[in-house]
Amino acid sequence: MSTIVLKFGGTSVATTELIESAANIVKSEYDKGNNIVVVVSAMSGATNQLIEHVDKINYNDDSEYDVVVSSGEQVTAGLMSLALKKIGLPSRSWLGWQVPIITRGSHRNSFIDKVIPDKIINDFENKKIAVVAGFQGISNEGRITTIGRGGSDNTAVFIASAIKAERCDIYTDVDGVYTSDPRMTENVRRLDKISYEEMIEMASQGAKVLQTASVESAMSNDVDVYVRSTFSPSDKGTLISNDVNHENDRAVTGVAYSKDEAKITLIDVEDKPGVAAEIFNKLAENSVNVDMIVQNNFIERKMTNLTFTIPMIDLDKALKILENLGKKLKISKVLNEKNLSKVSIIGSGMRNQPGIAAKMFECLSKNKINIEVISTSEIKISVLIDKDKTEEAVNALHTVFQLDQI
Amino acid sequence: MSTIVLKFGGTSVATTELIESAANIVKSEYDKGNNIVVVVSAMSGATNQLIEHVDKINYNDDSEYDVVVSSGEQVTAGLMSLALKKIGLPSRSWLGWQVPIITRGSHRNSFIDKVIPDKIINDFENKKIAVVAGFQGISNEGRITTIGRGGSDNTAVFIASAIKAERCDIYTDVDGVYTSDPRMTENVRRLDKISYEEMIEMASQGAKVLQTASVESAMSNDVDVYVRSTFSPSDKGTLISNDVNHENDRAVTGVAYSKDEAKITLIDVEDKPGVAAEIFNKLAENSVNVDMIVQNNFIERKMTNLTFTIPMIDLDKALKILENLGKKLKISKVLNEKNLSKVSIIGSGMRNQPGIAAKMFECLSKNKINIEVISTSEIKISVLIDKDKTEEAVNALHTVFQLDQI
Repeated sequence: MSTIVLKFGGTSVATTELIESAANIVKSEYDKGNNIVVVVSAMSGATNQLIEHVDKINYNDDSEYDVVVSSGEQVTAGLMSLALKKIGLPSRSWLGWQVPIITRGSHRNSFIDKVIPDKIINDFENKKIAVVAGFQGISNEGRITTIGRGGSDNTAVFIASAIKAERCDIYTDVDGVYTSDPRMTENVRRLDKISYEEMIEMASQGAKVLQTASVESAMSNDVDVYVRSTFSPSDKGTLISNDVNHENDRAVTGVAYSKDEAKITLIDVEDKPGVAAEIFNKLAENSVNVDMIVQNNFIERKMTNLTFTIPMIDLDKALKILENLGKKLKISKVLNEKNLSKVSIIGSGMRNQPGIAAKMFECLSKNKINIEVISTSEIKISVLIDKDKTEEAVNALHTVFQLDQI
Repeated sequence: MSTIVLKFGGTSVATTELIESAANIVKSEYDKGNNIVVVVSAMSGATNQLIEHVDKINYNDDSEYDVVVSSGEQVTAGLMSLALKKIGLPSRSWLGWQVPIITRGSHRNSFIDKVIPDKIINDFENKKIAVVAGFQGISNEGRITTIGRGGSDNTAVFIASAIKAERCDIYTDVDGVYTSDPRMTENVRRLDKISYEEMIEMASQGAKVLQTASVESAMSNDVDVYVRSTFSPSDKGTLISNDVNHENDRAVTGVAYSKDEAKITLIDVEDKPGVAAEIFNKLAENSVNVDMIVQNNFIERKMTNLTFTIPMIDLDKALKILENLGKKLKISKVLNEKNLSKVSIIGSGMRNQPGIAAKMFECLSKNKINIEVISTSEIKISVLIDKDKTEEAVNALHTVFQLDQI
């Protein structure tokens, strides 16, 4: 007998029919004698409808936003519990404040501080399934909060950690994590396993399977997470875990990309301490997410050129900020370039294999793809390229690192 | 400075635009320096959509029903608080469990046991408006409940009582209580005042303005209730209160009706103690709402004929119950008649004026309307008539008791 957490995303509970299908998946795990917590998202579309109401009133108050938007998961929790009872499984719904799931930080973007699972565990003794509304918690002031980063996935991971669950199954509309985006690359292969770190890089690089924050939570709580499809539940999906034995000592596990990147270059920035900090702080204050950063120093002139990338949608905002800052910091010119893509190769195996970067650059060069910016981490190499070349680059790299081969 | 409760019904908060209009009504009361509690229903249609989800899963569990359905009022509470803040009024939303509004009785049909208003009253010191989600509470087990009878109106009345409010304004889509149904009678007059008792009779007779249970709560808590229109807020509406001075010593305050009544007559029921009780208990157990009851005794035969009315929709169910019971109790025959209406005249003034019943029967007789059954209370006389004659009867009585005249 194990304790497991099953989480169903919005597309898996989009209709009452789908909720009943999901209940049958729960039944198959329950019938094995497992203790079960089910975490549910809002029915697909429900959250958007609620946000639309809030947007129409058009007044910014995150505490009331949370009251309105958290109702979506409340509805699914009640419906899922009904669906479970209908097929003979004892269950009850739990809202964030009932568990309780205590959060800290600001409304609309809270963090789970602590899950107190005693009441849920108590119910296991009666073989009762706990259906927990995802995405929500309660603040120290006793108000409803929503957790921005990772949402219901994060709820599932934190509960799994609190009840020391054997595993946490994330049921979604894809059947796992792939070597690259199946919509772009023909010979993608589903990964059986991937490490937390790799998954974090894959997620932030554009694989939308699981949000980075949730993987980070799973990593720090050492929770084994399976990404599985609601629509083929017999398939085990991809295990995201700590101890991943890579087959064939593979250096690269996957290729990820993100389109709609913009590049900004500041010409002749004064090369003294604090200048770069001031620039990036100002951008961060305004929620502009800076990604790759490259600096070229001209030692003889005590000047530097500073290049970085941001999401396309933030470009106008960033340019306005830099215009003001540019005068103060006496930056001679602000250049920008649109329509760029970031393509990354990811793999824990990189740590032990030299020459991976060279192989990547060579591959792109052979395909006449120009590299604008390079940035690297221990388990990732990213390049910024022309957006029109994204598909070509991803496919070429997928092939050259033999990701299509088992 | 007064403390007042403003309640907005579903049609008054059906869209975000209407919620903003309602917020402006709140502002006009706030600007007079009043302490204010706003109670809101779910947006019109929202509750039905939620019930539809529950019905689709088609499993009967009232505790989870409450979790799903109570989310409707939660959404409006958040949106109303946003709308108030937008026009500069400090406010916060309160859910049933947050106030708390403690209920007893079974889920889906709970009763408000106690409102603990301390936190709301605390907020008055900061001139903060409390926006309370109607229709919901929390059970002793810490679960969400909904209050069946009277719904959000009842929430408003109980809060008004708990905070000793000067008055409770029920904003709805009609501008008050009328001498009769404006859709049926031409010269109806809006009443400035009506007593609790009269209103209870009016409500149960088919005036849908305010549910009987809410008026009963107002009466037992001595809360002055105004029924007012959201769409003409400058109008004071109708006051429902204890001390009503009737203009001109009027005996009759209003004429009410309810269509779709059915009559059942049991022929030759044994005239001994317990038989009638057994019949009516059985019907009550099956939620058949018996209204008018008439019994004709035949002393020499120790038998009686028992006649009573029920809603048309319950007729088939009732006949089935009586068929079984009839054999056991040796009732010789069960007759029924469909398509009947109940028409009632209501007025506290009746207590002091003899001859009102006679005047009513004479009026109907002049109009060739046959009376099937009569039942009376201290402040009400009801007659059962042919459904096709409803309009004629209501109009004739409205005129004969001069309800169209100020």
